[in-house]
Parts: sequence; C-alpha cells; structure tokens
Amino acid sequence: MTVSLDVSPDDVQQAAARIAGRVRRTPVIDIAPRCTFKLELLQHTGSFKPRGAFNRLLSAKENGELQGQGIVAASGGNHGLAAAYAARELGVPARIFVPETTPAAKLGKLRTLGANIVQIGSEYAEAYQAAVAEQDKTGALLVHAYDQPEIIAGQGTVGLELLEQVDGFDTVLVAVGGGGLIAGIATALGEHAQVVGVEPAAASAMHRALEAGTPTDGPVSGVAADSLGARRLGDLAFAAVRAQGVQSVLVDDEAIVAARKELWSGFHLATEHGGATAYAALTSGAYKPAAHERVVVVVCGANTDPSTLI
Amino acid sequence: MTVSLDVSPDDVQQAAARIAGRVRRTPVIDIAPRCTFKLELLQHTGSFKPRGAFNRLLSAKENGELQGQGIVAASGGNHGLAAAYAARELGVPARIFVPETTPAAKLGKLRTLGANIVQIGSEYAEAYQAAVAEQDKTGALLVHAYDQPEIIAGQGTVGLELLEQVDGFDTVLVAVGGGGLIAGIATALGEHAQVVGVEPAAASAMHRALEAGTPTDGPVSGVAADSLGARRLGDLAFAAVRAQGVQSVLVDDEAIVAARKELWSGFHLATEHGGATAYAALTSGAYKPAAHERVVVVVCGANTDPSTLI
Repeated sequence: MTVSLDVSPDDVQQAAARIAGRVRRTPVIDIAPRCTFKLELLQHTGSFKPRGAFNRLLSAKENGELQGQGIVAASGGNHGLAAAYAARELGVPARIFVPETTPAAKLGKLRTLGANIVQIGSEYAEAYQAAVAEQDKTGALLVHAYDQPEIIAGQGTVGLELLEQVDGFDTVLVAVGGGGLIAGIATALGEHAQVVGVEPAAASAMHRALEAGTPTDGPVSGVAADSLGARRLGDLAFAAVRAQGVQSVLVDDEAIVAARKELWSGFHLATEHGGATAYAALTSGAYKPAAHERVVVVVCGANTDPSTLI
Repeated sequence: MTVSLDVSPDDVQQAAARIAGRVRRTPVIDIAPRCTFKLELLQHTGSFKPRGAFNRLLSAKENGELQGQGIVAASGGNHGLAAAYAARELGVPARIFVPETTPAAKLGKLRTLGANIVQIGSEYAEAYQAAVAEQDKTGALLVHAYDQPEIIAGQGTVGLELLEQVDGFDTVLVAVGGGGLIAGIATALGEHAQVVGVEPAAASAMHRALEAGTPTDGPVSGVAADSLGARRLGDLAFAAVRAQGVQSVLVDDEAIVAARKELWSGFHLATEHGGATAYAALTSGAYKPAAHERVVVVVCGANTDPSTLI
C-alpha cells in the first residue's frame, strides 16, 4: 500500500471548515511585549486533540467510512479523551483501549464521555495492537493519536487561528510527542513563521528523527511522558517537519516542572507537564529569541491533578 | 467635603489610556453560540483588581499625590495583592493592613510582592480603620478596594475591552462584592448592553441597596465571602448601578460551588468561588437569557487553592 506523506496547507484549510463549530477557537493572550500564549489548554477535553479527532471522524463520515461500528482508539490520555468526546458528539460508539496501568481518574473521565473502555496489557503498545485487531475484526474506524493525515490536518488548525489572531509573529514554540501537532502547525504556517519543536530530553522522538534522518525507536521517561512520551515520531509528522525546516530544542524535567509552576503562579493557567514544555524552552533559556523576535507559545494541555500545582 | 458621585464613560476611557501596558488585555472565549467568557481571571495577580489599583496610583502620580510614603490598603485578598503589585511595578512602598485571621498562603503571596504587611484585628473593618489612620499619620495614598472614582474607572476598562472583543452582545453578567467592577463596567457600556449583577444570597450588598434605595449594612457569609463579602455597597457604585439600571440576581452557595466545579471540569479554568459566581447565575437558572440573547460572563478571579477544584 502506498501512503502519501504529504499533508498540504489546503488539507488544513479544509479541516478548519470541517470542524468549525465542533471545537473551540481558543484565545491568545499577550504576556510580554513580544510573547503571546495560545491557550489551547482551554479546548474541549483540555488539549488540542479534538481538532484532529473531529477531522478524522468527519472526513470518514463524508467518505462513508464511519459506520455503526463507530471508532476505536488506543490511549489512556488526551487522545483517548478527544476521540471519545468527538464520537459522543457525532453520535457514534467509541471503544477505547487503555493499558491496565491507566489511573482510575482517567478511566472515570473516559466513562463520563460514554466510551466503552477495554483495559489490556501493561503499556501503550499492547493497547494499540488490540485497537488495530478490533478495527480488523469489526470494521470500526481507527483514530490514531498522531500518524494519520486527517489528524495532522486537524491539529494544524491551531496554526491557521494564529495567523488570524496574532499580528506578525516570527516563531511558534510547540511541544512534541508523536509529532501530530507540530506537523500540522508547520504545514499551516509554511513561510509565515518558523516553528520550533520542544521536547523533554527524556522523550525526544523528533530530535532523534531529525538527527538520524528517519524516525527511530527510543526510550521514554520523565515528568511529561504521559502526554509527550511517544517512542517514535510519526512518519507523516517526520515528512512534514523536515519539509518545513522545523527546529528542535530539548528541555530537562527540572525546566518543565519550573515552567509549569510559573504558568500557575504567574498566569493562573493549570497545565499538565506536557502543556508547560514549550514554555520551558523560554524560561530555561534553551531557546533564546533574538532582540526583536516575536514568539508564540502553544500552551496545549490542562489534564493534570490540580492539587499538584502548588 | 462634597464628593462627586459620578464616574463618567470618559473617566473609563482615560483610565484605559493610563493603565495601558500595565495590565493584561484578557482574552474572551466563545463557549456556546450565544455565550462568551471574559477571562479576567488571567489578569496579573489573578483578578481584575490591578486595573483599578493602577488607575488610582497613576492618577495620584499625575497629581503629585503619590509621594515617597507610598500607599496603604486594607485587604488580605485580591485587592491587597493588586495594590501591592501595582506599587511594586511603580516603585513605591506598599503597606497592606490585613486581619490577623488572614491565611498564611495569602500572606506569603503579599510578601512575594514586596509588601509591608501589618496584621491587625479580627476582621476587615479593623484593618481598614488602621489603614485610614496610617494614611492620616503619614500622608500615604489610601487605595480603597472599591469606593473611589479612580478604582471604578479602572475596573470599567473590562467593559471597554468587551466592546472591542465581542460583536453585538446583549448582556453582561458580573459578580458583585462592594460594587467597583460592576459600576465600572456599567458606566463603560452605557446603552450598549444591559448589566446584571450576580451576588451570593449570603452576601447581597447590591441587592439590598437597590431594594432600600440606599446602601445599607448587612450580614456576610457563605463560600464566596472572601472575595465578595462586602457588608455594604460602595456609595459611588450605588450611584452608578442605579443610574445605569443594573439588574440584580441572587444565587445560593450550592449553585456557586457547582458552577466552580463546572468551570474546572468543562473549561479547565481554575476559579475562586467569587470568580464562578456570575456563571452560577446561568448554570442555576437564576438568570435565564431570552432565545436570541447573547451573554458575556465575566470570570473574574483565580485565587483559589487548586487542590479544592476536584
């Protein structure tokens, strides 16, 4: 099977039209003369993920691929919540495969969204295999966490909104896990701005892929592993970030923890560690903007235990 | 001494020019086809209060009334934080009088802002008297929590921003304590929109004043008393809300608690009880918009213990 590795700016534009009214147009706030936050943590279910999920489901609906069997997805985290939310809103059943280690609080949220939950295996890879098997057996629509064109195009609508909301920015800092969000934003922005991917040093799939010239498996650990802990960058994401000349910056866990605390104490934003990772590049000095460079930081996830914020 | 009870729309415009660059232009987010949140909880120090504090301090500076003695204020809460923040930013000393009952966490925040803290008496009234005595003795500038024209004009800049940010809204829901915020917003909006004040039934200074035809003392209790618990509506606020035909709605503590939980679970906004009170009017049905009415809810305060959000 040949799969096109291209997601085009036009795909992102079509995604925006497709998901309009289903997702929140999240606001921006200027926090310094040359620094703006994109508050994507205020999206439905607390992360950017519904953008891609809605685009995947609605595209499949247009093509007749979304039937009564509904959808399957593998994730105990933000992707699972988004897939379950999108399925509920569109009135189709969702079966979400999660590792047996998934915390009760996350299972509770998934249940609240009406998802049928299957706990299987000790880690994500096993849950994913079970989701693929379910797809083969039932014909349900598989909604991948990052490596499908519709997912990337949907996440890219964050970039289109930035073009409308922020005048003349130079750079966007984006946290990277499997690469769906950064691939979409880089595709949407093209020549308008440079895109910098920020990864935990302990989970650096994009950094590794750019160095090796191809996605490779690697270790995953650290405070942000629950949301950014992809073992390997997606192939579609890799094609997009390489085509767009995306830069890579690494931050350590200490920097992520400090940035998350500052987002709470200084801005009253409750973020998960992954949601604070892009900002950590600025606060730690891992990324140093030039004198007149105008930077946008995508604050992308709020699914955290708020009692850990202080 | 004759005091003018009028704060004019022009005063609010001047306040906006005066405090520009000192306060954040807080964003709005559409959460339903005819409902928008104004995210004033993302303001510096976690509430709208710096708008009034900066306008008071900068006005006094222009008039030569802000000298080396600095400022005094009475508050262990949002007003104290805002006054201390504004003083620090403008490089003048702040002496904040707080009741001896003020929690250590709030004292810590005030100290972080460099304020000189005086703990005195068992309740706000005693701290306020001590602040007035200090003003008399030292000539420091008294920054009132709500009942000064510059404070009301500063808070009114929230209304000016709404006129720029939201197309064609009909109604603004605003939580009311001493009345500074609602008086400012009502003055700024004039005929552009109706303004509805929302108060806890257990702390209803504006409701009582509108019924009696004048501000009267009354009891204060309930979950939102720390931020909305004024015993008596300000005289200036009363003049403004009566002149602008502001409506009054009461909500009970149960509704406030439920609205605060929903702001966290549904929108990932961490609010204090006072910051959720305006939204409680919608969620409880205490205020029922008409079929095509477009409503803005001012979400005005984030100073809460995040471990109590879930």
